[in-house]
Amino acid sequence: MNYGMVARVIGNLLLLEAAVFSLPLGVSLYFKEREAVLGFLLAMGVVGLVGLFLSNVKKESAQLRIREAVLIVTLGWTLTSFFGALPFVFSGSVPSLIDAFFEAVSGFTTTGSTIIGRVEELPRGILFWRSFTHWLGGMGILVLTLAILPTLGAGGQQVFRIESPGPAPDKFTPRVVATSKILYSIYLFFTVGQIVLLRWSGLPWFESFLWAFGTVSTGGLGLYSDSMVRYGANGFLITVTAIGMVLSGVNFSLYYDLGKRRFDQVFKDSELRLYLALLLAATFFVSLSLYGEVYSSVGEAVKQAFFQVSSIMTTTGYATADYDLWPAFSKGVLFFLMFVGGSAGSTSGGIKVIRFVVARQMIHRELARIVHPKAAAPITVAGKVVSPDVVKGVASFYLLYFAFFGLGALIISLENVDPLSAMTAAAATLGNIGPGLGMAGPMQTYAPFSPFSKIVLSFLMLLGRLELFTLLLVFTPSFWRE
Amino acid sequence: MNYGMVARVIGNLLLLEAAVFSLPLGVSLYFKEREAVLGFLLAMGVVGLVGLFLSNVKKESAQLRIREAVLIVTLGWTLTSFFGALPFVFSGSVPSLIDAFFEAVSGFTTTGSTIIGRVEELPRGILFWRSFTHWLGGMGILVLTLAILPTLGAGGQQVFRIESPGPAPDKFTPRVVATSKILYSIYLFFTVGQIVLLRWSGLPWFESFLWAFGTVSTGGLGLYSDSMVRYGANGFLITVTAIGMVLSGVNFSLYYDLGKRRFDQVFKDSELRLYLALLLAATFFVSLSLYGEVYSSVGEAVKQAFFQVSSIMTTTGYATADYDLWPAFSKGVLFFLMFVGGSAGSTSGGIKVIRFVVARQMIHRELARIVHPKAAAPITVAGKVVSPDVVKGVASFYLLYFAFFGLGALIISLENVDPLSAMTAAAATLGNIGPGLGMAGPMQTYAPFSPFSKIVLSFLMLLGRLELFTLLLVFTPSFWRE
Repeated sequence: MNYGMVARVIGNLLLLEAAVFSLPLGVSLYFKEREAVLGFLLAMGVVGLVGLFLSNVKKESAQLRIREAVLIVTLGWTLTSFFGALPFVFSGSVPSLIDAFFEAVSGFTTTGSTIIGRVEELPRGILFWRSFTHWLGGMGILVLTLAILPTLGAGGQQVFRIESPGPAPDKFTPRVVATSKILYSIYLFFTVGQIVLLRWSGLPWFESFLWAFGTVSTGGLGLYSDSMVRYGANGFLITVTAIGMVLSGVNFSLYYDLGKRRFDQVFKDSELRLYLALLLAATFFVSLSLYGEVYSSVGEAVKQAFFQVSSIMTTTGYATADYDLWPAFSKGVLFFLMFVGGSAGSTSGGIKVIRFVVARQMIHRELARIVHPKAAAPITVAGKVVSPDVVKGVASFYLLYFAFFGLGALIISLENVDPLSAMTAAAATLGNIGPGLGMAGPMQTYAPFSPFSKIVLSFLMLLGRLELFTLLLVFTPSFWRE
Repeated sequence: MNYGMVARVIGNLLLLEAAVFSLPLGVSLYFKEREAVLGFLLAMGVVGLVGLFLSNVKKESAQLRIREAVLIVTLGWTLTSFFGALPFVFSGSVPSLIDAFFEAVSGFTTTGSTIIGRVEELPRGILFWRSFTHWLGGMGILVLTLAILPTLGAGGQQVFRIESPGPAPDKFTPRVVATSKILYSIYLFFTVGQIVLLRWSGLPWFESFLWAFGTVSTGGLGLYSDSMVRYGANGFLITVTAIGMVLSGVNFSLYYDLGKRRFDQVFKDSELRLYLALLLAATFFVSLSLYGEVYSSVGEAVKQAFFQVSSIMTTTGYATADYDLWPAFSKGVLFFLMFVGGSAGSTSGGIKVIRFVVARQMIHRELARIVHPKAAAPITVAGKVVSPDVVKGVASFYLLYFAFFGLGALIISLENVDPLSAMTAAAATLGNIGPGLGMAGPMQTYAPFSPFSKIVLSFLMLLGRLELFTLLLVFTPSFWRE
């Protein structure tokens, strides 16, 4: 293991984080928030020093193999979250380090679970930082590093592959630095667009920025303890946010294709089709279930259903209603969607639609094989044959995902919370969604969970964001053997 | 499709069922239960006539391909259950045909979910028939036919393969008739042993027979509305039943190996090892969770935990306590076990431990593959390489299983039952377990569910017993195309 190189990359990442603290620091200075200003300055000092130290560790070579890439991604996310929690602690906004770590992990992994009850009482700089962690994590913090700093060199390819969500076929240019820049340009474009639209809907600039960060990153941390309920009457705002979430759950490489006028490739994309079909079907069924039961107008039922379905399926987690009070069927559909997620190569989490595209074909093949044992049709996505290795990877991913979901729910239920709360808390953190049902419902916070459960849930968030294998590898003995 | 041959096999199956009615008829005659006697006679007439008609349908050839085998197994289970429901209706014990069908499917598939509240008020002949359906379904009704009637000829191999639970390697002699006889001999041996032990524990003969049928078949229908709670103080009875369930959840081919003194093969069997390890680990954790909370003595906590863990994991479903009132963690472990099940080639249902043996290896291989992309170790069970087709089959099975679980729970939640009841009802029927939690709890019945839900749950029971693919194939258009 080339520890020197790992330390240097992590060091650079932390230096970048220290630099980024200047943004919320500026906000706090502008709003004259003394404690927050001091908190950010202190955090900047600590993170900067650690970063400086690590980035100067002597390296044996510049070589980065898969092992180093795995370690960089795992440590990178964990340490960025840990140090990103310092402003919460230093400013006195979140006194407990475990709570602050939970909040920071939830931010960077774009989960959106919160332990803060009276969100509206936080200093604006802290609110900004909280939402900005979403934005930083959305496209991958290391992809961001790649786009800005060329430290990784040839190893960037490995890091990029490991951090990018979903088993996406390599559509882009092999030059990862260029790819990262393209991805972040699209991401920036959507963010600016979302900010402008939200400002247009009547929100002040500050709020427009923060909600936009949480939307395009499919994060879900908001500005109020009742999420977006107060905006319920503002149809434009609700619709803009819902569509923003849906667009952010699409594979960003399709926008690149769209820009290159490859319309055929976009509209024939099997993941996009299934993604939209699931979204529409779920909206339809939830609308049916809500109409008459919860909302007396069809329009309101459809609006609420579309918003909530988009929010859960894209793993954002915003709520315009306390869906925990909805009929069992609606809640069931939302719970189901927690296991679907958005598309590969998007900012969303969960299992991701492309794996369902592969699974659907696996099942078809299996049914056909019983009647015709000798026929063997390969699995294809977007007209290209998916290699058996990728198919095995998808199958293993499902198994591990359900295993960790079950294990997580079991461990949470150790503190005797009801099974539904335990299950949805595990599903909502593993899938990087945010709120679940019951004790983890959209109008609740994760504060009442025990410190032990909070650590477990933080681990699930990281596990989900790093798509299981990367994080798990670090815990296998063979990973450390040369 | 060779419909003639399909009809003849089904006809023979129904003739056999009509003949079997004479056993409960005898019980009802002995106890002078007028209505039940009339019910069985009427059912015998109807089933016998339909059977006679079908068994004389003209066949084009004696050929049985996979298609015919699939259709025979699917129709066989559905029709045996449908006609097996007639005595319930004709005797007036269960007036609704849907309820009676649910009860019969639950019996034959060895699920053990009941819609009957006051079980103790049923005529003894009906009680006997209810429990005897378990026994008939335990080893497979068509395996039974194979053992008794040689109608299937060369096609028996296909039918055997399709009906046998789990992707078991073919250990037995290729002569399926001989194999069926061996399997039924072991099964009979266990049944007789269980009856004798239960009689010894102090139960009357009649009750010993019925509880034994439900135990060795891992069924779960009992004689009282509170399952086995009344026997709580009879430690011998509880232990005998628990061990009986555990033994019935083991691959029966291992008993054959044991008989042939192939001890090494038995004790190195990876499925058996994981099965016992899971059983012990779950018992340990549930005991810990119960001790102090529910039971003040360690012995009582271990006894109750061992019984309930064995009952759920082997998919039997008997209860010596209302585990729905246990701590969340204990309930969580039980819910988790609902997805495990017993071993392949046993009488139990669920996903089955062997699939977890394969899954564990798939995940190991996948983790190794990330670091060493070129290394490729095959997956092995019991020292033999598992073919990639079987591995794909296992992966597809998991995906389908979770899909049907989710879909089933969603459909049940349409009638606005709480999510946990809906989920456990779906899991408990799909896994052929019986009781779940909440509304489907061990001290409840499935009677309050709507007729629509009862049909859905019956479908899930058949789906689980026929291991998804067989039943699903019949619903695919390509199955019917020549």
